[in-house]
Amino acid sequence: MRKVTYGGATSLDGFLARPDGGVDWLMWSDEAAAATMASWEGVDTVIMGRKTYEVAARQGSGGGGEFPGVTSYVCSRALPPGSVQGATVVADAVGLVKRLKGEPGKDIGLMGGGDLARSLFEAGLIDEVGFNVHPVLLGAGVPAFHPMTRQTDLELKECRPFKNGCVLLTYRVKH
Amino acid sequence: MRKVTYGGATSLDGFLARPDGGVDWLMWSDEAAAATMASWEGVDTVIMGRKTYEVAARQGSGGGGEFPGVTSYVCSRALPPGSVQGATVVADAVGLVKRLKGEPGKDIGLMGGGDLARSLFEAGLIDEVGFNVHPVLLGAGVPAFHPMTRQTDLELKECRPFKNGCVLLTYRVKH
Repeated sequence: MRKVTYGGATSLDGFLARPDGGVDWLMWSDEAAAATMASWEGVDTVIMGRKTYEVAARQGSGGGGEFPGVTSYVCSRALPPGSVQGATVVADAVGLVKRLKGEPGKDIGLMGGGDLARSLFEAGLIDEVGFNVHPVLLGAGVPAFHPMTRQTDLELKECRPFKNGCVLLTYRVKH
Repeated sequence: MRKVTYGGATSLDGFLARPDGGVDWLMWSDEAAAATMASWEGVDTVIMGRKTYEVAARQGSGGGGEFPGVTSYVCSRALPPGSVQGATVVADAVGLVKRLKGEPGKDIGLMGGGDLARSLFEAGLIDEVGFNVHPVLLGAGVPAFHPMTRQTDLELKECRPFKNGCVLLTYRVKH
């Protein structure tokens, strides 16, 4: 069955971005580029929340239109269907992921903030998490993990320190 | 100068304990025991907040009385001086740490919740952080890091995966 993966770059205190969405603190490197490329190779579907879509759209990479072979979904109860470019708007994230997991295809990547990930963790639908933990405490920002009503047990798949002090941690979710 | 260290075991989502203080999720191992021993070898002074003291006291290890050669302080504005066993009560954590760092001695370990660590991070008084990241998302609990008004830059000192899937991450604080 298709895997659903969630991840990204975080600070040690668990933020994906500054409070204003800023990611100026990210440390780019050949190692990070290679790991990012590898993580995207197995993915043919991307799901993001509205806020992530809006940030991506401002940066000119709103939807799947820019990534040949990648289908993009934006989960939002506020946006009307068909209202965004390059992506399909869906209100029910859990229903969408359940349906997609039952269809043939490559892996499904969750992008962006933890709001979407929370509902999918709570529904037991996420299969793998991977974070590039940066050597910084931001103090505040967009959290990778929101409060959840259930515990999720993980299994360490890989721990890879980069030369620049970042550490890539990848886990399988125990279902 | 004496180093001030902050650390402990955390879940991947950054909790030191469950909301009720529970640590039943901790994965003990020979590797964790050796790392804990090593981290305590250089320490002769322990500083904790009131809540951590109360948890430790209930478990019968309230203060330095049980650790020969270790001096314990409890930082609290609520507790009157001299009111706890085995430790000295101090209201001003920042003032205490500034004074202790200027005195001869071994390293100073911060124990427990992130409330105390926050004020010391913001005052630039913490020199090293070390976390044994457990392969679990607790969903809720006592956070290792509270919101802070300043960014703290770190330098990765060690990244050590354990056989049981925990990862020990140790950082120097860049002052």
